[in-house]
Amino acid sequence: MKTSLSFILILFSYSFCVAQTDEAALKTIYKQSLTNGKSYQWLGYLSNTIGGRLSGSTNAELAVQYTKKELEKLGLDKVWLQPVMVPKWVRGEKEMAYFVSNNEFNKVNICALGGSVATPENGLKAKVIEVGSYEDLKDLGEAKIKGKIVFINRALQPDLINTFEAYGGCSVERYRGAAEAAKYGAVGTIVRSLSSRQDDYPHTGSMSYGDLPIEKRIPSAAISTNDAVKLSEALKQNKDLEFFFEMSCQQFDDVQSYNVIGEITGNEFPNEYIVVGGHLDSWDLGDGAHDDGAGVVQSMDVLRLLKESGIKPKRSIRVVLFMNEENGLRGGRKYAEVAKAKGEKHVFALESDSGGFTPRGFSFDGSELMLQKIDAWRPLFKPYLIHYFEKGYSGADIGPLKDDGILLAGLRPDSQRYFDHHHAANDTFEHVNKRELELGAATMTALVYLVDKYGVETTLKMKEIKD
Amino acid sequence: MKTSLSFILILFSYSFCVAQTDEAALKTIYKQSLTNGKSYQWLGYLSNTIGGRLSGSTNAELAVQYTKKELEKLGLDKVWLQPVMVPKWVRGEKEMAYFVSNNEFNKVNICALGGSVATPENGLKAKVIEVGSYEDLKDLGEAKIKGKIVFINRALQPDLINTFEAYGGCSVERYRGAAEAAKYGAVGTIVRSLSSRQDDYPHTGSMSYGDLPIEKRIPSAAISTNDAVKLSEALKQNKDLEFFFEMSCQQFDDVQSYNVIGEITGNEFPNEYIVVGGHLDSWDLGDGAHDDGAGVVQSMDVLRLLKESGIKPKRSIRVVLFMNEENGLRGGRKYAEVAKAKGEKHVFALESDSGGFTPRGFSFDGSELMLQKIDAWRPLFKPYLIHYFEKGYSGADIGPLKDDGILLAGLRPDSQRYFDHHHAANDTFEHVNKRELELGAATMTALVYLVDKYGVETTLKMKEIKD
Repeated sequence: MKTSLSFILILFSYSFCVAQTDEAALKTIYKQSLTNGKSYQWLGYLSNTIGGRLSGSTNAELAVQYTKKELEKLGLDKVWLQPVMVPKWVRGEKEMAYFVSNNEFNKVNICALGGSVATPENGLKAKVIEVGSYEDLKDLGEAKIKGKIVFINRALQPDLINTFEAYGGCSVERYRGAAEAAKYGAVGTIVRSLSSRQDDYPHTGSMSYGDLPIEKRIPSAAISTNDAVKLSEALKQNKDLEFFFEMSCQQFDDVQSYNVIGEITGNEFPNEYIVVGGHLDSWDLGDGAHDDGAGVVQSMDVLRLLKESGIKPKRSIRVVLFMNEENGLRGGRKYAEVAKAKGEKHVFALESDSGGFTPRGFSFDGSELMLQKIDAWRPLFKPYLIHYFEKGYSGADIGPLKDDGILLAGLRPDSQRYFDHHHAANDTFEHVNKRELELGAATMTALVYLVDKYGVETTLKMKEIKD
Repeated sequence: MKTSLSFILILFSYSFCVAQTDEAALKTIYKQSLTNGKSYQWLGYLSNTIGGRLSGSTNAELAVQYTKKELEKLGLDKVWLQPVMVPKWVRGEKEMAYFVSNNEFNKVNICALGGSVATPENGLKAKVIEVGSYEDLKDLGEAKIKGKIVFINRALQPDLINTFEAYGGCSVERYRGAAEAAKYGAVGTIVRSLSSRQDDYPHTGSMSYGDLPIEKRIPSAAISTNDAVKLSEALKQNKDLEFFFEMSCQQFDDVQSYNVIGEITGNEFPNEYIVVGGHLDSWDLGDGAHDDGAGVVQSMDVLRLLKESGIKPKRSIRVVLFMNEENGLRGGRKYAEVAKAKGEKHVFALESDSGGFTPRGFSFDGSELMLQKIDAWRPLFKPYLIHYFEKGYSGADIGPLKDDGILLAGLRPDSQRYFDHHHAANDTFEHVNKRELELGAATMTALVYLVDKYGVETTLKMKEIKD
């Protein structure tokens, strides 16, 4: 009875002190971000002064140098570049496409998919066969596909609340469509843009030919959602219409690039690492403000906000700006490879790669014990309207760090507008709201603060205390 | 013991059945809105074809006719116009303002506040006295204020998470500033725009002279946040600089207008009324897409979505499109007055007047019993990321309905971007996202469905059953 009572008292006073202090810490963090944040200013530079940062491009290297320099100004314990070889794919001239229907010329908004081969120099013109999914190709067979352009017209499912789920349901069409269509003798593929809006922006993104020999590779492009509807309508009128497109994209040899890393060394467990990051590369059509400029500047600000809030981490906190998430994931793989080779113990990694919109919470990938612990922190986040704590996917770049001892997490901002901009020319700075971006940075910082302070496994093991 | 067990069984089977059915109903409602909603199309017409709809304007009357016609197409049981006299204030020519500092001419983005008198015909030029709040005027006194333009430079507090709270903290400056400044002999007031952004848009909004005699009324305007910063800086250099502004706004006699009302008559309790609404009038600078076109079209779609989802309400559901929320609240008062005169029993009213952004939940104004009951519905909303169920303000138009027997509620969308657009020229259709708008309409419909089905007071009274 006595043990039990003192245990309850200890627990009570412990919880009470912790709760008070943590509430105050979170308040300071959010206030710092909303009144003294740097994320928006950094994003302005990355987006407007540098612009799109496709792996292997000059802009990507400018972004490496800029973010390294900015991290160096923060007075971190270490800032360094981690070399990584990345693919270099170049779009070339702006693509062109049209079809003629009922004697009417229809210009089509089109862009090459990342990794695609070019069309012949004077373009490619062929009849079109429309499918709802690459899976339909098998049934159609070579007889109906050979010599044609395959048009994969699959829209994002609008009644899914989480737009990432809708995107996930379609992205395979973009990624594998050309490889599958080529098997049946198609001469090209065009894919409806993976956009949640009806508009005129084509959305690029990575595609792969798998193990298809070079000579069998066919050009692959995305057309805008409005053009997909128009083309589909026109095909209903005239299934023999011809579609023309011209692209001069090209794949070069891999080039040298870098992950950019900064560290605050922990004062109690310096050999336990917490990573917070986003990816520095972007597609080339817009300026990559949401994907993933937002994640980059938020991650940078996590370390700065910890410092500005007077928090001295126990564990070593690293910001990692990964190179080449979009078309290779070389940066994410390299970071994990080096960490493993050095035997660095990573306990937690958090990625922001879902846009700079109002944060709603996190998805977590870890053990049940870890998830239970995190879940107990919900009340601390309630004043900031952070409510989403669910098991789920974390982020592409931190994925390679996965093992039994680490908790992975992804920031989950409101997803409704993300795929209006994703991989398109309208992924630009003006579509990022300063407060929303800063709330995201603060929310990430708050979680990093808690994980650093308490670890991800239960520190207060009831069984041990009772024994 | 036996009673207790059968009671538990009844409760269990009741909850089980209800949960299943309600989950399916909500799924249907959300799917209908996201795949077959009309809110976005209606909003396009209201915003782009009609435009700003200030009370007493031709556009406001066009909006009355348009929404009535659209409601009539829905096959409701009744659609009618409820006459209400509204104030008519007209902005006149576009306002002009500047100040000269260090021999540099600074054009200022300015707009008259709603209800302001005009400046003299050739404008008004005077020295400026800057204050942080109208409350500072008393300390300064007539000696320092007389003959000057009072510049109230109070920014929205950026570290408040809910931007409505930040707005609430400042809106009194806009509303009362001129009346207070006039008491000390000021010749005009200019107010920093109540915007959460730094930009060039001045934000209008209502102001009042209180009981100040007409001859003592001084012109009152808002300047953009960027200009407020510039002017404040210039005043630090030269406190004697002169500010010029010119406005030709005018107040006319009240004119006839209307609330637009549609009803699905209840099939079980036709004399119990549920109201869902927004306000049809808007300010004149933008097209009023967020404030409150969004609320109007969402409310219209609530009745349509109920029908499309095959739901036949027990109670009478009314959509009320209130006239004149912005500068008079005459529509809200009239509706409540008529309802009271007719002895209509209103059990629930829900307003959407916080923008067409991603819905987060609701604020409720009602008895503890009602709030407890509503709170039990939270799990039904979880799949739609609706998490905010808090006691609080409902909406201006439904406020006059308040009495002990009614539950009032306000839709609470994400608030981060609302005051970027509120009452300014950039409150336009392009800033409303289709999915976000439709999610709001579905969320409102879901709540109306539940309130209609179960009422707002506990239907299963444990005490009665036990007795």
